[in-house]
Amino acid sequence: MKKTDQTMITKNKNVYFEECIEAIKNSDNIFLASHIHPDGDNIGSLLALGMALKTFNKNVNIIKVDDIPKDYLFLPNIDLFVEPNPKDPIDLFISLDCSDLDRLGIGKELAIKANRLINIDHHITNENFGDINIVDPFASATGELVYHLIKKIGIEINKDIATCIYVAISTDTGSFMYDSTTSETHMIAADLISKGINTNNIIVNLYQSRSIERTKLFLKTLNTLEVIFNGKVAFVMLTQDMLKECNANMEDSEGIISFVRDIEGIEVACILKEYKENEIKLSLRSKNIVDVSEICFKFNGGGHKRAAGCTIFDNIKNVKNIISDEIYKYFR
Amino acid sequence: MKKTDQTMITKNKNVYFEECIEAIKNSDNIFLASHIHPDGDNIGSLLALGMALKTFNKNVNIIKVDDIPKDYLFLPNIDLFVEPNPKDPIDLFISLDCSDLDRLGIGKELAIKANRLINIDHHITNENFGDINIVDPFASATGELVYHLIKKIGIEINKDIATCIYVAISTDTGSFMYDSTTSETHMIAADLISKGINTNNIIVNLYQSRSIERTKLFLKTLNTLEVIFNGKVAFVMLTQDMLKECNANMEDSEGIISFVRDIEGIEVACILKEYKENEIKLSLRSKNIVDVSEICFKFNGGGHKRAAGCTIFDNIKNVKNIISDEIYKYFR
Repeated sequence: MKKTDQTMITKNKNVYFEECIEAIKNSDNIFLASHIHPDGDNIGSLLALGMALKTFNKNVNIIKVDDIPKDYLFLPNIDLFVEPNPKDPIDLFISLDCSDLDRLGIGKELAIKANRLINIDHHITNENFGDINIVDPFASATGELVYHLIKKIGIEINKDIATCIYVAISTDTGSFMYDSTTSETHMIAADLISKGINTNNIIVNLYQSRSIERTKLFLKTLNTLEVIFNGKVAFVMLTQDMLKECNANMEDSEGIISFVRDIEGIEVACILKEYKENEIKLSLRSKNIVDVSEICFKFNGGGHKRAAGCTIFDNIKNVKNIISDEIYKYFR
Repeated sequence: MKKTDQTMITKNKNVYFEECIEAIKNSDNIFLASHIHPDGDNIGSLLALGMALKTFNKNVNIIKVDDIPKDYLFLPNIDLFVEPNPKDPIDLFISLDCSDLDRLGIGKELAIKANRLINIDHHITNENFGDINIVDPFASATGELVYHLIKKIGIEINKDIATCIYVAISTDTGSFMYDSTTSETHMIAADLISKGINTNNIIVNLYQSRSIERTKLFLKTLNTLEVIFNGKVAFVMLTQDMLKECNANMEDSEGIISFVRDIEGIEVACILKEYKENEIKLSLRSKNIVDVSEICFKFNGGGHKRAAGCTIFDNIKNVKNIISDEIYKYFR
């Protein structure tokens, strides 16, 4: 996106923030929800905005559309996540960090039923499905947008709200390492830390509490590491047998692919995950050159230039041959 | 340290900054150096201050007291590091990030010979060996102090200087994860990014370029993982044979111990490194409770509460038994 686009987004965003605040002020029963398979950004953003609106004397319901991964159970007021009551009146529904209505899971029905729908997100693929849309792909995390919204409403960011926004930003930027991290991101982090948050406790919970099962799975998967095409492409495989041997589940495989990509000289890293005997999900990462979403698109998958995925229905060995043939086209 | 101590340090620091700037203004031939076994903070700090003083029309010499690890060779103006010429006149010597004169290696002699000696550091153990000492243990990195010094002199922080300070801070805070990271640290990072630095290139060079030899050694060492004392203590071993099999050297073992400590429930992590057949260096890490420097002190080693080391002269199996007996005392 060009600089002018960014300026335009910022300009429009300020208008939408005003509309958003107006809608919040005029609503009593406010529902918040985000996407299934929750992560740090959406859990942190929901809790932060939920807590803020509660201090604003609103009846706030944060809808639990999926299980909360245990890494995030340390967050303040995590019990604000509740099952929806279908009889509740909904003046306003706020969707956070969710690119389309379907990803809201059981939240979708409530979003449609609500009198007004606000959509706040930082994914470039967002479908602008709200009555009011604050979509800024230049924000490092939805947590950044929630931070600005709370400030603009005029609610004080207390220690608990700051903790949740910090978690949102830290997890969605890989602790300020991803390209999406801007000057603004650090300015916000500086402000959040000044609220007296316990960053050490956050870091231990987020990054220094890898379960022994996850650790075993990490090592077992990496022991399958194979480097081909002159050190430029790396594969690892994860089978159902390996999950059983480690007493782990597929979610425990998070982080393995980044470790593989981070090997010197590797341009494309690929993990093959056996979900069922002939159902292999692939995740691809690239470092500088190859657009891995192009490769995944050929198998009805998608994603971004540097991170993409797809599913191929065949046995794991055949899938490896199929995908390495595709990757080879970029290196011959 | 108490809050009053921090206020006093800040107050004194401002006085020392003034003296420091005065000394720089009155000197033509300025030598800079830091500790042996260089890291991101000292290399980044030296280059940043060196470049800044050059724009101030000073004759600047950055003394190379040790080899530069290849992770840092991408830094701008890395060739400013030179071997010292013993005949050069030295008006002013600036020591950065170095807690005592001995750690300057071949730089020590030049520091003693200089007309004036400035000592800028953030280690609490700093011996205040300079004529002017700017020592602030609350700074996350010496790079933070160099940032303030350059600003106070009135030199513009250009993109190259910003890149070097960013590397200093990022590496010494584990990308803003260590406890030492403050609001101030993030404010500085925000300013550095606004200078147009290429953070993606920095991150790839610093954190995403693990050599294949290092990767193999990581996996081989972690395959020796043993968890004892009810999941609270973990050991890994690294032998000379393993180094040979991976075509790696002992420096490639960096980072393994943190990975072990980061396992959920682990309080003490220990790596046993076989330097010679009966010479085992141990590194210990703890998470919350055990003071590992106490344990290492018993074997004439030392360090901090959460990170310490020692050497035991015996074969690796005996050493493991000796040290686990000591650790056991904390868990019985």
